Amino acid sequence: MKKILIDCDPGQDDAVMLLLAMASRDLEILGVTAVAGNVPLDLTQRNIRIIRELAGRTDIPVHAGCRRPMVRPPMTAESVHGPTGIDGMDIHDPAMPLGAAHGVDFIIDTLRAQADASVTLVPTGPLTNIAMAIVKDPSILPKIERIVMMGGAMREGGNFSPSAEFNILVDPHAAHVVFDCGRPITAIGLDASHQVVTTRPRLEAIEALGTPASAAVHGMLGFFNRHDSLKYGFGGAPLHDPCTIAWLLAPDLFASKHVNVAVETGSPLTMGHTAVDFWHVSGRDPNCDWVHSVDADGFYTLLTDHLARYPLRRPTFQP
Amino acid sequence: MKKILIDCDPGQDDAVMLLLAMASRDLEILGVTAVAGNVPLDLTQRNIRIIRELAGRTDIPVHAGCRRPMVRPPMTAESVHGPTGIDGMDIHDPAMPLGAAHGVDFIIDTLRAQADASVTLVPTGPLTNIAMAIVKDPSILPKIERIVMMGGAMREGGNFSPSAEFNILVDPHAAHVVFDCGRPITAIGLDASHQVVTTRPRLEAIEALGTPASAAVHGMLGFFNRHDSLKYGFGGAPLHDPCTIAWLLAPDLFASKHVNVAVETGSPLTMGHTAVDFWHVSGRDPNCDWVHSVDADGFYTLLTDHLARYPLRRPTFQP
Amino acid sequence: MKKILIDCDPGQDDAVMLLLAMASRDLEILGVTAVAGNVPLDLTQRNIRIIRELAGRTDIPVHAGCRRPMVRPPMTAESVHGPTGIDGMDIHDPAMPLGAAHGVDFIIDTLRAQADASVTLVPTGPLTNIAMAIVKDPSILPKIERIVMMGGAMREGGNFSPSAEFNILVDPHAAHVVFDCGRPITAIGLDASHQVVTTRPRLEAIEALGTPASAAVHGMLGFFNRHDSLKYGFGGAPLHDPCTIAWLLAPDLFASKHVNVAVETGSPLTMGHTAVDFWHVSGRDPNCDWVHSVDADGFYTLLTDHLARYPLRRPTFQP
Amino acid sequence: MKKILIDCDPGQDDAVMLLLAMASRDLEILGVTAVAGNVPLDLTQRNIRIIRELAGRTDIPVHAGCRRPMVRPPMTAESVHGPTGIDGMDIHDPAMPLGAAHGVDFIIDTLRAQADASVTLVPTGPLTNIAMAIVKDPSILPKIERIVMMGGAMREGGNFSPSAEFNILVDPHAAHVVFDCGRPITAIGLDASHQVVTTRPRLEAIEALGTPASAAVHGMLGFFNRHDSLKYGFGGAPLHDPCTIAWLLAPDLFASKHVNVAVETGSPLTMGHTAVDFWHVSGRDPNCDWVHSVDADGFYTLLTDHLARYPLRRPTFQP
Repeated sequence: MKKILIDCDPGQDDAVMLLLAMASRDLEILGVTAVAGNVPLDLTQRNIRIIRELAGRTDIPVHAGCRRPMVRPPMTAESVHGPTGIDGMDIHDPAMPLGAAHGVDFIIDTLRAQADASVTLVPTGPLTNIAMAIVKDPSILPKIERIVMMGGAMREGGNFSPSAEFNILVDPHAAHVVFDCGRPITAIGLDASHQVVTTRPRLEAIEALGTPASAAVHGMLGFFNRHDSLKYGFGGAPLHDPCTIAWLLAPDLFASKHVNVAVETGSPLTMGHTAVDFWHVSGRDPNCDWVHSVDADGFYTLLTDHLARYPLRRPTFQP
Repeated sequence: MKKILIDCDPGQDDAVMLLLAMASRDLEILGVTAVAGNVPLDLTQRNIRIIRELAGRTDIPVHAGCRRPMVRPPMTAESVHGPTGIDGMDIHDPAMPLGAAHGVDFIIDTLRAQADASVTLVPTGPLTNIAMAIVKDPSILPKIERIVMMGGAMREGGNFSPSAEFNILVDPHAAHVVFDCGRPITAIGLDASHQVVTTRPRLEAIEALGTPASAAVHGMLGFFNRHDSLKYGFGGAPLHDPCTIAWLLAPDLFASKHVNVAVETGSPLTMGHTAVDFWHVSGRDPNCDWVHSVDADGFYTLLTDHLARYPLRRPTFQP
Repeated sequence: MKKILIDCDPGQDDAVMLLLAMASRDLEILGVTAVAGNVPLDLTQRNIRIIRELAGRTDIPVHAGCRRPMVRPPMTAESVHGPTGIDGMDIHDPAMPLGAAHGVDFIIDTLRAQADASVTLVPTGPLTNIAMAIVKDPSILPKIERIVMMGGAMREGGNFSPSAEFNILVDPHAAHVVFDCGRPITAIGLDASHQVVTTRPRLEAIEALGTPASAAVHGMLGFFNRHDSLKYGFGGAPLHDPCTIAWLLAPDLFASKHVNVAVETGSPLTMGHTAVDFWHVSGRDPNCDWVHSVDADGFYTLLTDHLARYPLRRPTFQP
Repeated sequence: MKKILIDCDPGQDDAVMLLLAMASRDLEILGVTAVAGNVPLDLTQRNIRIIRELAGRTDIPVHAGCRRPMVRPPMTAESVHGPTGIDGMDIHDPAMPLGAAHGVDFIIDTLRAQADASVTLVPTGPLTNIAMAIVKDPSILPKIERIVMMGGAMREGGNFSPSAEFNILVDPHAAHVVFDCGRPITAIGLDASHQVVTTRPRLEAIEALGTPASAAVHGMLGFFNRHDSLKYGFGGAPLHDPCTIAWLLAPDLFASKHVNVAVETGSPLTMGHTAVDFWHVSGRDPNCDWVHSVDADGFYTLLTDHLARYPLRRPTFQP
């Protein structure tokens, strides 16, 4: 079982990522930390707990991390995700409470308790919590086996500025710290995620599962689709964050290139741009496996198969 | 006849661009100015004169412009183009001399002598000469019908830095002046030019023409291919610069989107990056038709058909 | 008694600052946190404990904070301070241990336990710990009465780059977070500290006190002088950090102007520059009392008077 | 006789600079070029011609150069200088016309006609014309003996942004080209010019000369004083531009240090800042004599003595 620590900001696609991860029998989820991103922290931590209960996985600890980026002012994306971040699903207030420790400390303490190179970090929001943990206690670095992240863009320009993807744009300084940390990184950005579009047949296959989890996914992605279909004209929204878990479960679905990625932290025009040295012209050492293509049908099959594991009735919990 | 002013830095692909333009019966070439770029100015102006004589078009004036960028130190690309800039063709020293006026003044004086909105500028190198003309005499702006340029990149990252294309990287400040000038712009960058690859069959079709001009094109593109095939693994080199003339002759071969393009002039990491607001997320007004796709077969047919107009024997000149 | 929290990176001038603060009867020192700066963290935390024992103030908790800046790579100043950071004094290994909690958490927990607007922060090194505490838990902000810091420069250019002072240059991103935090700030930069030079008569007055503390100060400042006298030709070194405590004890010795200070975090050339809007030309709201002049004689009298309170024999401690 | 070429943007202080230069018997003024700066180009070239006639020096050619900066949008300073640029003097429309050649070409052609290292350039406005001449024709560089410029600031922060002086801020890219050109440079910035304040006694000494020229200077500086006295509280305005000519006529009035000066062209916050490496901490080679102090009384004596050479009656001209 691969040990993973998830850091996210649900967001419909984060929610689907969590449902995919929590359905897997190959991943030991050491915990999930919330970060401000798609919506503010008070919502992202709540949304994680909502999904945890929907998945029946209250064994997994949830902690709230940072409510603002390291340097820049906060920035959210309610225009895409709706005011709750998970608009489209039926929202039940979670019964089980948030963990007491700060998310940054939970990351540090969890990593310190594990063997070297034994934990995979899976950040799918702004990288604030991960970078804060590294800056606060650099001794955690050897514990990290790999960082498998959603963020960045090369071929697709940007989605929140002409040259930057949202997760990196929100906290480019944190992204710089992470790309510069010296541990193996798999980065899945818009180049890959724009290939896994939630078309109507794919959505219908999920809906057909007929479970509370599949209904939630169907509802959320229906909501998500409305915004992005309009923007991109793709016939569906890119399903960004679940790519990270899919890469862990079925790496053969993805192709990547070992390159240097550097993050723009200085210029207002290109702030948050990921300079992906795809043609090796910079002379900088590679620090990242940059995912550039995805088997989209394989990805949706994997996702649907995992969602099919959820029971027909919603689990209930007593705090 | 459309009146055009060409500004270039041959470069094998500039040379092919010139041969394409000079073979056309639909373009009135008011002159060609040389700029430092692929190779230094003394070579680019000589190379233009070599091609002019190969094409038998000594009626067209040639003038040398700037030998350095506006702000940054000079930068050349002999690694791609060879020490002459047009390696691969049989080089004859030109018989006819260079025009006396400075290229920047030739641009200004030529434009001032024409009617408003009557001249198309076709820059296929760094934009130094065009920007210097605009800064020296902004009253030329109304004379410009459109600027049809080769430069920039969105989907393809960059070719000389991870995020910048060569022409813009060499003189990003000039590119800023041009994109900011208020006249209509068609920008053909790597997104488009990487679609028009000189495959072996296409090269053979050109060689089969059996003329001095086709031999020169075949030789130059064979040289060019060796570098870029290795770098990109495309099975041939992208034929950047001739796209500009092809767009003028057969715009239906190209598809573009009306967007804002802003040039990074501040940050060392992303210097020369063209921030193409392809999804209209910046709120900035469109200033450019950004070409994103090309009918590659149509392009090569157009090119070969035009090259077929050149005679079987090399013309000679007396200065 | 004014409650203060000191964050520093001794450094000879930090050491003198600590001796001045610890001799005062008007300041309640809630704790001292160490940050990497003049020398690495392992030395700065040790140096604080050495000074704490020299001052006989083992009642004051000492905690180690961050060993690297938020975004930039670490940078130290052994060229000025010597390999230990407090070269020039007689170094005894401290008997009493470091506090267990991380400095950032100590700052957060200490502030949260106090009333609103009741604690003055006194940072005299890079602002990493303070900024990390603010980012990790912004709810501490209302607890801060004021931040009285040493850092920045306007009139004096910079001391580690042409336009930046060391403390800000080491962690400009942290400085940005602090200047942007919304609490009252008194900033004492090189403009002020270059006015309080350790001339020979001033050094002799301190030496004449004849105590272990005065001997340490005399030894350290003698060392410090050698480097800076050479560099500036001032006839002595500027005594930067003690100005903060002096401002708290005798604000009338200082004159300041209420202005906006913004920190450069983008450009390599001016990285860490404090843009002090001294003539109110930027339109930005003031966020800082910028100290521009000091009564140097008054300052040295205050310092010497406080050092005179230390006993003739070195105190001893049992851990 | 020292040969000089003046480039300026009058501006009251440029006007006084011209009157000082035109009264000297030690300077051969090869010409004066106008640049956009304090007011637009149409006014600066007219103002130069007004002063030329007031001085009775219609032997000196006047040419208009660039009406916009190299890269940035135009920016003027009517708030300081009034709508005409020379508010305060009695304005007579000039009788003698402007030279036909563009100012940039006049600079190039004049330099090319002279011996190596024989001409001193005296720019007292934005450096657009000088930089454009260098970029257009770098072969002029060896002709330049020295560039004696007004621009930049270290100790005094900035006057149009917290960290930038007006001349550099208007065209920082041109300033970069000039500071990077390899020829000897004397830079007189706010550090120096803020020491030569037009106090009431100094103004009265000029007025007492009782000539049309002294009346013009008295009137203009009275106007100028009103703005700057309010802003700086200095008891008079700094008389920036005439320092350049004074340095040529009486260098002993000035003290300077040989240092590196680099210009910020990337960051919006510090755009146009001159990073003066006064303490030699950057490792960059010196490229400039940075003037840091002035004998203000000596300066005003020199100025008044030269103004005293103008006749009691205004000269008249026929075009």
